[in-house]
Amino acid sequence: MKRAVVLFSGGLDSSTCLVWAKAQGFEVHALSFMYRQRHQVELQAAARVAAAVGVAQHLVLDVGLDRIGGSCLTSDLAVPKDSPDIGSTIPITYVPARNTVFLALALGWAEVLGTGDLVMGVNALDYSGYPDCRPEFIAAFERMANLATREAVEGRARVTIHTPLMRLTKADIVRLGRSLGLDLGLTHSCYDPDPEGLACGHCDSCILRRKGFDEAGVPDPTRYSAIS
Amino acid sequence: MKRAVVLFSGGLDSSTCLVWAKAQGFEVHALSFMYRQRHQVELQAAARVAAAVGVAQHLVLDVGLDRIGGSCLTSDLAVPKDSPDIGSTIPITYVPARNTVFLALALGWAEVLGTGDLVMGVNALDYSGYPDCRPEFIAAFERMANLATREAVEGRARVTIHTPLMRLTKADIVRLGRSLGLDLGLTHSCYDPDPEGLACGHCDSCILRRKGFDEAGVPDPTRYSAIS
Repeated sequence: MKRAVVLFSGGLDSSTCLVWAKAQGFEVHALSFMYRQRHQVELQAAARVAAAVGVAQHLVLDVGLDRIGGSCLTSDLAVPKDSPDIGSTIPITYVPARNTVFLALALGWAEVLGTGDLVMGVNALDYSGYPDCRPEFIAAFERMANLATREAVEGRARVTIHTPLMRLTKADIVRLGRSLGLDLGLTHSCYDPDPEGLACGHCDSCILRRKGFDEAGVPDPTRYSAIS
Repeated sequence: MKRAVVLFSGGLDSSTCLVWAKAQGFEVHALSFMYRQRHQVELQAAARVAAAVGVAQHLVLDVGLDRIGGSCLTSDLAVPKDSPDIGSTIPITYVPARNTVFLALALGWAEVLGTGDLVMGVNALDYSGYPDCRPEFIAAFERMANLATREAVEGRARVTIHTPLMRLTKADIVRLGRSLGLDLGLTHSCYDPDPEGLACGHCDSCILRRKGFDEAGVPDPTRYSAIS
């Protein structure tokens, strides 16, 4: 059975990637990160989803991006709420080089697992405008990765970064996850949950997620702390 | 004063890069990694060299590559000694995706510092054959990095990876470091030091280093635990 490393935050997109990878016939090795993000609710969601979906392995790697800073997700800067024009500029929720760091660590783990198949839930349609979610970034990373590892250079494991959500709307992602049997209510997307882990409903991530459920005509199972 | 992030292990090569970057007029931000390597002697050397050379900042980032494994440097596999034909195959000292991970973290820190200048002491001449030390890897990483960060994409900090040692022999590196005033005796290269931190003299890294001093005609200041 061919292995794949799935970058997995416990959010809607990466959880959909998890069930997508299983449906493709991959043995799924899920990789999450404790990067000192402002809340660890997403790691709890990741554990729930991984258990529900069933994966070969779920590894949580520690990498202290708070020491680098530069984002409201790794510091105590405020998370923007009810932003107009999401995606038109790069917001403060952008974490410097985060996807480069995450893909690099996934690449290392994949090499040890003897595979070059990585799966990542990046999306360049209903997204926050992060540069490291765009197809040209992914293509350049893949090219670099094929020059980086022993397994790739010696021809045993060519690196392929699968991005099944790249051209989907959030509504498409909701539909895809549901069609593959994912319990969407287990996933967590909010950047700024309350102390009980309930979603704020107003950060970019909540707005995009709510829009996805609305447009898909699927009841939103998210538990919100306050809906205006 | 233009800033540069120097990837800095405390070894001969990266310490030479530190003094090189200062000589180029950069404000030097040195970046080391606690990656759960088998010994932390190199981090002690890094602190000594950084203090002696004088840097604007020395950050030690924690990233648990032992959770990934796949190398004798991040596990208890034995370090090869007195290997013939160093560089002809990729040895077990290779750490999966290490330079990709280190450069990714350096990229994130550089972005927060408002610079795109990274300096790395990779060398493709007197080296262990690691794929992620080769010029084609570095060029591909640089290209990817310029698509990855906000600072690069918005045109404020184009990423350049300076590799001043790429085409030098180890003897050239010894000469360059010395000519720039580096106290070479402060640096540590051995993969497998004894409990007191003395170099083994027989791992690939010791052999390449000794060859460098020999060929440069410079007395070797390294403290060895046992010389056969």
